[in-house]
Amino acid sequence: LLWICKQCGFRESVRKYYWRCPKCGAPLDVEYEGSWNPRGKGLARYASSLPVSPTKTLGEGLTPIVKMKINKIKIWFKLEYLNPTGSFKDRGASLSLYFAKKLGYKTAVEDTSGNTGIAVTAYANLYDLKSIIYMPKQAPKGKKNLVKILGGEVIEAPSRAEASKMVLEKIKEPGVFYVAHIWSPLFIEGNKTIAYEAFEQGFKHGVLAVPIGSGGLLLGVYRGYKDLFNWGLVKEIPFILGIQGCSVQPVYTAIYGKPLECGESTLADGIMVSNPPRVKEVVDVIKRYGNIVLVNNDEIIKALKILYKHGLIVEPTSAAVLAGILKALDYGIIDPGDNVLALLTGSGLKTHDILDKFLNSR
Amino acid sequence: LLWICKQCGFRESVRKYYWRCPKCGAPLDVEYEGSWNPRGKGLARYASSLPVSPTKTLGEGLTPIVKMKINKIKIWFKLEYLNPTGSFKDRGASLSLYFAKKLGYKTAVEDTSGNTGIAVTAYANLYDLKSIIYMPKQAPKGKKNLVKILGGEVIEAPSRAEASKMVLEKIKEPGVFYVAHIWSPLFIEGNKTIAYEAFEQGFKHGVLAVPIGSGGLLLGVYRGYKDLFNWGLVKEIPFILGIQGCSVQPVYTAIYGKPLECGESTLADGIMVSNPPRVKEVVDVIKRYGNIVLVNNDEIIKALKILYKHGLIVEPTSAAVLAGILKALDYGIIDPGDNVLALLTGSGLKTHDILDKFLNSR
Repeated sequence: LLWICKQCGFRESVRKYYWRCPKCGAPLDVEYEGSWNPRGKGLARYASSLPVSPTKTLGEGLTPIVKMKINKIKIWFKLEYLNPTGSFKDRGASLSLYFAKKLGYKTAVEDTSGNTGIAVTAYANLYDLKSIIYMPKQAPKGKKNLVKILGGEVIEAPSRAEASKMVLEKIKEPGVFYVAHIWSPLFIEGNKTIAYEAFEQGFKHGVLAVPIGSGGLLLGVYRGYKDLFNWGLVKEIPFILGIQGCSVQPVYTAIYGKPLECGESTLADGIMVSNPPRVKEVVDVIKRYGNIVLVNNDEIIKALKILYKHGLIVEPTSAAVLAGILKALDYGIIDPGDNVLALLTGSGLKTHDILDKFLNSR
Repeated sequence: LLWICKQCGFRESVRKYYWRCPKCGAPLDVEYEGSWNPRGKGLARYASSLPVSPTKTLGEGLTPIVKMKINKIKIWFKLEYLNPTGSFKDRGASLSLYFAKKLGYKTAVEDTSGNTGIAVTAYANLYDLKSIIYMPKQAPKGKKNLVKILGGEVIEAPSRAEASKMVLEKIKEPGVFYVAHIWSPLFIEGNKTIAYEAFEQGFKHGVLAVPIGSGGLLLGVYRGYKDLFNWGLVKEIPFILGIQGCSVQPVYTAIYGKPLECGESTLADGIMVSNPPRVKEVVDVIKRYGNIVLVNNDEIIKALKILYKHGLIVEPTSAAVLAGILKALDYGIIDPGDNVLALLTGSGLKTHDILDKFLNSR
């Protein structure tokens, strides 16, 4: 198992932890020989294709797929919100916190607007580590509460950017593990298991609709299908439909050269990442294998109503995915006859307090 | 498929719906020839051993089991809170609302303090039925919100008892399906699948710890293991450890002849059912196969802290189960060497607003 930096060529056997390249500051990846040998349950099912294999579990992974017809298109929804802490972040957190424990760390820290903080705290608890979570003041109250109830220390920052600055101060102290989910290759590796599962659940080609925040989810499912392709299990990489919100659209802007005016997308708090460190790789994947659409609050609310009307209890960020699919249909980017897999990333059970006012109009 | 009444002997082929015996008013059961032939996912996996087989799914069932060591005892937790709407009620709701649809009903009504209302509304949505939920004023706000967000109509009653009275008025109208989860055999049938899954996940004997509200969960897992026993798949029915709260203890009182003074258990709102219609059958099962313990708020909070400390995000009613296990250990009812399976029934993601004040002391 090696750390590798695609930017400066840094390579080192994995004996200690880096949250980014110690030479040039770019995001790191891990290199290892993976193979296809699924057996057992949860993430451990794919131990042969993961860089590390967690010894403990909170029940993450093997999330169900449900099939529904919405506005004349048949969509397969993968219910990532049924992971143990209510989001797909549990997959990466499972690998990352296990790794922290293995290396002897006692405290894990993270800057996040919500779901990751809950996941990090829960898995820190599982491995008996302390957790300190830096969150922006405006993060949903329910998400802050959950970190606190789990026993994590919440430190409020004036903004998301300030939270990141504060965490960088904190990790100067010795023995502090910076989870750094938007940088960490372990989160991408964890997300590969979504592709492996979807493949085993029958999704072998078609359109894979995925929200883009840090890009770790998109890169994870892409690399997962690339593995499956390399192992001869699928004939092609799915068409990857990326979805960003109108308010924060770094990937769209990088692809099309300038931002698109399309309104506000403040409801999709989970994908508001202005400077994703892996933007270049995300852009490359989308240019080669798919396309991107932007959605705004009105479209998100419309999609959210449809999902709730079908009994799917998601958070607004997840509804952005359905909004994106409907928009891509409108634009002719995808076709009503397509095989569409949509990742529903976060649970609406956490956010009922903020949804009330948007949905009561129905 | 027959309706049968164990009290008055009523028998009738299932062509229309009764929420209780039309002759004597006792709870009904269903009679049919079940067999063991698991295949596929979700509840449909056990179609051969269920009275009806739902055509649609929200991803219910096949919940994970995680194994943890708590206070020197190894416990297997079955995470029923990872069902689609955050509780085990999804299993019964899946069968019940499918049945309502099949019989041509357009509206489903239910009286409940919370989780069942969310489950009923979600599955009503899945089958395109209207839902009206009668809830006591003091039901957790988060649970009411979720019913509303799903598009269910919430009607507030001054108390749980008043909610039941109001629903009985409503069902005098034609075309209204009364889900009646505390009466309905379909909920018990749905809960049997918990036993089937636990068996397939490796729990073949030991102590099965289960909270008692209406008793439908306890009767479901009991009947499930009885099926497995009848089919020759297990050698014995597990020891069934029932758990009630000190505030509402009808089963305990029926077994021991008088109530036990042990404090308040208001936190366990999910098991506060004062007159469970199937109390006699529950008492019979416990007398023959197990025992019962009562827990109070202090014990529930202590157990809740332990569960959160291990990363398990449950609602207080679920913590009552761990509290009950620890008490049964204290009392010598069970042994530290026992194989214990605990059902964690409801998600803490819904209840973070009420937990804040109890857990912040940690």
